Amino acid sequence: MTPMVFEVVRIGQRVVRDDRVTTHVALVARAFGANTIFMTEVNPDIKETLEKINKTWGGDFSIEFIDSWKSLIKLKKENGFKIIHLSMYGEKINDIQFDLRKEENLLIVVGAEKVPREIYEFADYNVGVGSQPHSEISALAILLDRLQLGSQFDKVFSGAKRKIIPTKKGKIVEMNETRD
Amino acid sequence: MTPMVFEVVRIGQRVVRDDRVTTHVALVARAFGANTIFMTEVNPDIKETLEKINKTWGGDFSIEFIDSWKSLIKLKKENGFKIIHLSMYGEKINDIQFDLRKEENLLIVVGAEKVPREIYEFADYNVGVGSQPHSEISALAILLDRLQLGSQFDKVFSGAKRKIIPTKKGKIVEMNETRD
Repeated sequence: MTPMVFEVVRIGQRVVRDDRVTTHVALVARAFGANTIFMTEVNPDIKETLEKINKTWGGDFSIEFIDSWKSLIKLKKENGFKIIHLSMYGEKINDIQFDLRKEENLLIVVGAEKVPREIYEFADYNVGVGSQPHSEISALAILLDRLQLGSQFDKVFSGAKRKIIPTKKGKIVEMNETRD
Repeated sequence: MTPMVFEVVRIGQRVVRDDRVTTHVALVARAFGANTIFMTEVNPDIKETLEKINKTWGGDFSIEFIDSWKSLIKLKKENGFKIIHLSMYGEKINDIQFDLRKEENLLIVVGAEKVPREIYEFADYNVGVGSQPHSEISALAILLDRLQLGSQFDKVFSGAKRKIIPTKKGKIVEMNETRD
């Protein structure tokens, strides 16, 4: 079976006010096995933060800046991606997860507080991670965990300078500095 | 089987800078079946936000302000709670989740960027939701989801003015206003 491909697009965020939340969304995308996050109008510091994380902790996760989320969605659909929109109004993840796992290429749309109404129509799946308000950060994490059944945590992040060895107490880090 | 009891304590956050992240941590605690979140030195607006959410979406989730997380942990231990500290350095959640599910009363410690070293000793379990940096918001969500195997999303939040009816497209909300 070919492994699923996950890409994420962040929409509707407000620069500055949502920067930390957007950074956490990007970190979750990376740590939970997505390849890329697409963003419009975003603070360039976020890209820098993620590049530093890649350098230290490995992998080649990328942030791509885009002009229009609509064009991106159309392009991805033409390329065989299915679109999942995370929304507290969507179908129950506990029920729909089995269908989602049959897909191959997924573009996950993560909105901020307000999203354009059209997105509900563009999406192949509107998925609710529960029907109570919480956070786009937790919604994305749960979706990616349910899709991969936890296997994302076994993924190797190649080229890491530091690697954590899980332990009961304290911190154990394998250091693989390539210079100095 | 008695249902597990979950309480959360947020430590190490910086007022203002971490306010939105702390709010999202509280929202996740509520939406994922915890009863209470304890906090030190926090912006009172966060309590107000959560009280508004309770009014609209139901349930009796509470925020309690405390002076010392250490005293809280000691008290909870005396009352039979086990302490789980979420840390990217901890034991793999994929392995430890089976042991955690056997516990009855859990206090979950959610740190911000820096946490006091002692917490690793106080904790009965140091649990890593993966070994890559992401977010305390996603870490808490994954832990609570794994502990309850998704059943938290079927929990009834009593007294709600609004209740979402999950749907494929758009938004369906059952309105139960008690006055006007």
